[in-house]
Amino acid sequence: VRETDCCSSPLRAAFLVIGNEILTGKTQDSNTALLAKMLCSVGIRLTCVHIIPDDVDTIIAEVRALSSNFDLVVTSGGIGPTHDDVTVEALAKAFGTTVVIEPSMEKLLRSHFGDRITESHILMARVPAGCDLITVDNPWPTVRLRNVWMLPGIPEIFRSRLSTMHKVLAGSRPFVSHAVFTNIEEADLVPLLNHVVSLFPTIDIGSYPAWNNPDYRTKLTFDGLDENEVSRAMSLFVSGLPEGEPLRTT
Amino acid sequence: VRETDCCSSPLRAAFLVIGNEILTGKTQDSNTALLAKMLCSVGIRLTCVHIIPDDVDTIIAEVRALSSNFDLVVTSGGIGPTHDDVTVEALAKAFGTTVVIEPSMEKLLRSHFGDRITESHILMARVPAGCDLITVDNPWPTVRLRNVWMLPGIPEIFRSRLSTMHKVLAGSRPFVSHAVFTNIEEADLVPLLNHVVSLFPTIDIGSYPAWNNPDYRTKLTFDGLDENEVSRAMSLFVSGLPEGEPLRTT
Repeated sequence: VRETDCCSSPLRAAFLVIGNEILTGKTQDSNTALLAKMLCSVGIRLTCVHIIPDDVDTIIAEVRALSSNFDLVVTSGGIGPTHDDVTVEALAKAFGTTVVIEPSMEKLLRSHFGDRITESHILMARVPAGCDLITVDNPWPTVRLRNVWMLPGIPEIFRSRLSTMHKVLAGSRPFVSHAVFTNIEEADLVPLLNHVVSLFPTIDIGSYPAWNNPDYRTKLTFDGLDENEVSRAMSLFVSGLPEGEPLRTT
Repeated sequence: VRETDCCSSPLRAAFLVIGNEILTGKTQDSNTALLAKMLCSVGIRLTCVHIIPDDVDTIIAEVRALSSNFDLVVTSGGIGPTHDDVTVEALAKAFGTTVVIEPSMEKLLRSHFGDRITESHILMARVPAGCDLITVDNPWPTVRLRNVWMLPGIPEIFRSRLSTMHKVLAGSRPFVSHAVFTNIEEADLVPLLNHVVSLFPTIDIGSYPAWNNPDYRTKLTFDGLDENEVSRAMSLFVSGLPEGEPLRTT
């Protein structure tokens, strides 16, 4: 992973969500938002999320394409012991390496399960040969192969691995994000918004109408890597609003 | 949209989520699960979800690729009146057509806004020339261009458009889905699971460990288009469990 170059060209990340349970609506994905916030906090831009089935060939094709096209890739899901856990195998194949049992992980599993341990438990120690094992704050390593971080899908464990990733990636300049809430309808803000957008090309300005929300009608967001520019864009917008507006800013 | 051919080759759908707000973690996507469930209920398999920024060129490339590779594509987001709403323009460009103001939609807007109407409001009547306008149960049409359904991102409106889509697509055989809840650890189920998986290649069998859940340890799901096959696979699995198991089935 390269260091962030400068504020105008942040690193770009992709997220590959592996799981039939999301594609059938049995589970609602909550890992994307967690990852997105963590990456924003270290100035990395998440620009692509792909949700795909538990299928080896699909994972291989996606991992190869995303790994080439993005600075950093995160996968989630498919690293348990059952037949539908094929991410380790697919990642190894994608990079022309093999699957091995990692001794340090096997040791942790043996110490956890004791006499109860079976071959199936040991499957959880499978990693692609040549991967990095990262243990910042947790004895169980986070696995990275080249620029691909392999995270589990279960949100509680995903979150703990994000904390490890954050410590490794920290030090970059975070994205700054502010918001303005108004009682004005989105369509009525178009001329003012277009004016601000044209003057601040490096700031991402988003407009989100509320629906049946008594609290406000439109939320505007101002995101960028330069705090000063973000504040100037927001101030220009706010100064163009009528009296009594905005309702609030954050 | 073709009719579902048979239970072994259901139609395949892709979902293109357009929105910086998802990629920055400001909003958690909930539309994927809604769409997935609706498609399952009409026997269509969602096999691909891409979440991308509000960027015209990215949308064009994605729409072209997904429209060619899938029977049906659904987009969400980017169809309001502001600068970050670029889906209509991108969809038109993707298929070499132009953006026009649809008279029936302009009429609805004029009737809704009356004297307050501005040019910005009229932008909400933009559609790609040559699109289908589908009004099953709602005066506001749902827009489809070739095999691409263009839905709004706001979950409440997205849901109402899904109801329109459902009525158009209904008649196909739904996917059947059953689940088994057990107190057995996932790794201990591997031999039995592998046995059932090998005997029922047409059934999607998923295994999901619970985390810190006092209610059960592992949930197994059995999905397919043939109710009889799904039930047989589940029964074979259940018959291999020890006494006192499963906790319950659904």
